[in-house]
Amino acid sequence: MNEFELIRHYFAAARCAQGGVGVVRGIGDDCALLAVPAGEQLAVSTDTLVAGVHFPDACDAFLLGQRALAVSASDLAAMGATPLAFTLALTLPSASEAWLAEFARGLQQMAENCSLALVGGDTTRGPLSLTLTVFGRVPAGQALLRSGAQAGDLLCVGGELGDAAGALPLVLAQRDATPEVAEPLLARYWSPQPQLALGQALRGRATAALDISDGLLADCGHIASASQVALHIELARVPLSAPLRAFAGEEQAKVCALGGGDDYRLAFTLPPALLADIQRDWPEVRVIGRVLAGSGVQLLDAAGQPIEPPRGGYQHF
Amino acid sequence: MNEFELIRHYFAAARCAQGGVGVVRGIGDDCALLAVPAGEQLAVSTDTLVAGVHFPDACDAFLLGQRALAVSASDLAAMGATPLAFTLALTLPSASEAWLAEFARGLQQMAENCSLALVGGDTTRGPLSLTLTVFGRVPAGQALLRSGAQAGDLLCVGGELGDAAGALPLVLAQRDATPEVAEPLLARYWSPQPQLALGQALRGRATAALDISDGLLADCGHIASASQVALHIELARVPLSAPLRAFAGEEQAKVCALGGGDDYRLAFTLPPALLADIQRDWPEVRVIGRVLAGSGVQLLDAAGQPIEPPRGGYQHF
Repeated sequence: MNEFELIRHYFAAARCAQGGVGVVRGIGDDCALLAVPAGEQLAVSTDTLVAGVHFPDACDAFLLGQRALAVSASDLAAMGATPLAFTLALTLPSASEAWLAEFARGLQQMAENCSLALVGGDTTRGPLSLTLTVFGRVPAGQALLRSGAQAGDLLCVGGELGDAAGALPLVLAQRDATPEVAEPLLARYWSPQPQLALGQALRGRATAALDISDGLLADCGHIASASQVALHIELARVPLSAPLRAFAGEEQAKVCALGGGDDYRLAFTLPPALLADIQRDWPEVRVIGRVLAGSGVQLLDAAGQPIEPPRGGYQHF
Repeated sequence: MNEFELIRHYFAAARCAQGGVGVVRGIGDDCALLAVPAGEQLAVSTDTLVAGVHFPDACDAFLLGQRALAVSASDLAAMGATPLAFTLALTLPSASEAWLAEFARGLQQMAENCSLALVGGDTTRGPLSLTLTVFGRVPAGQALLRSGAQAGDLLCVGGELGDAAGALPLVLAQRDATPEVAEPLLARYWSPQPQLALGQALRGRATAALDISDGLLADCGHIASASQVALHIELARVPLSAPLRAFAGEEQAKVCALGGGDDYRLAFTLPPALLADIQRDWPEVRVIGRVLAGSGVQLLDAAGQPIEPPRGGYQHF
């Protein structure tokens, strides 16, 4: 098999992943064709991951395949979109059969997990990088935007934060930990679970939403800016996992949760009356603050007094 | 301005390009939102261009911006799709203000030319490469595919071939030529004009179509294979431009036209009765052969006898 046949062979499985309705024509022509049901709109997002910038040069191809698609699918969750399909642009220095087989297996596993069908792409020779474009569908006018937060809303997150940033010393093999600590942290880095069902449930309920990729404070800044409101975050209410606390310590865990990024959990604003309904199905959803008139993001201590974010470094690529 | 502000600033103009109907929400949220009119489908294509592989490491940023979008838009032409929007994933070693300004200007010019609106993307640090994903709309069931060619159809191309491949010694500054020769050849390499209007006119008429990117013989092989037919090409009917003949010589011009690629002209199969109608509006359309029962692509001499493709090297990246 030549390089292109290899790629076709290994990606055939991901192509078969069920993408719900809407994939009229996938790989094999000049374009893929998608059908969008009447009354719905198409949500589109593009993300690039570059070796040595977004993931270690030497990493497990299976895990990379999982992570690349999860990162992109999380943008569909943030809009409340129902997953449909994706394209993959893969740039590789050389086509190792073993690498491709493992990468395609990881991609396929996440594709099935997210109900996304591979419908097209491009394979080129060059320094390792991946650009994924994901497609979802959402009823017209119901997409979750960053811009609708209202004074009086609660500020919520979809679960514990900071694990992926905290895991970086493990990802880079700079530190060791016991399996009970290392395994959950590495899983949160390598195979984050896009909160697709939560996002869909928030349609018509959340007033603003996004997925946390730049870090809680930075991403809350995006909501505050787009919605022209102020967000107050109570530090003590930001949920931290037990493995993160054990591995990084209490102070560094807070640093990771506030600024580390790569969480791919949803942050959203919600009228208070709707909280019980959401938490019944998603008990991991936590209220971490509230929306006020004003601008910017303010961190508060347990007494409700403004504080500076705790200082500390976290690993960057 | 920091890097991200710079990029937002320079791409603001391309964002404003008119993308026809359908762009509900562009840059600025987790996803862009596209509306597809009832009865239409969305055509999607992704292409990656890597520095040193698909274009010279040192090249004019304005020309690169034009070429990158033209290459992708040509896939919409090949499906007969009406252009709608595109996303840009740009990986850059560093963000030079002058480079970004010129690149964005070239991108914007081609975006206006093709009626494509920039609706999203990603900017990352790394070795220079670009991945563009283009979106078009097409009435359901009317997209031009590679698979419908019928014995008895004519094989046509959308104009002269080989100019872009022939231009490579000029692109790489390995040879000189007079302006009358160099300018048209370089223009065909750096700013190919996607045959969008021709593609739309071929809907319901052409039985199969694609855009020539791998070279005429290879791309005709794709039609033959997808349609399960044989294609016969008469070498003497393959249209060659005067500048290509002058620059490369008659034999090498044929080599470029048959195998060089990067033409981004349409190749399509057409029932003979429809030819006059197409050529009235597109006089540059030429019949180069015909479709027969069988398989594969056969080159013929002027007497209709099978011949081998002329041999000769063309520059590769």
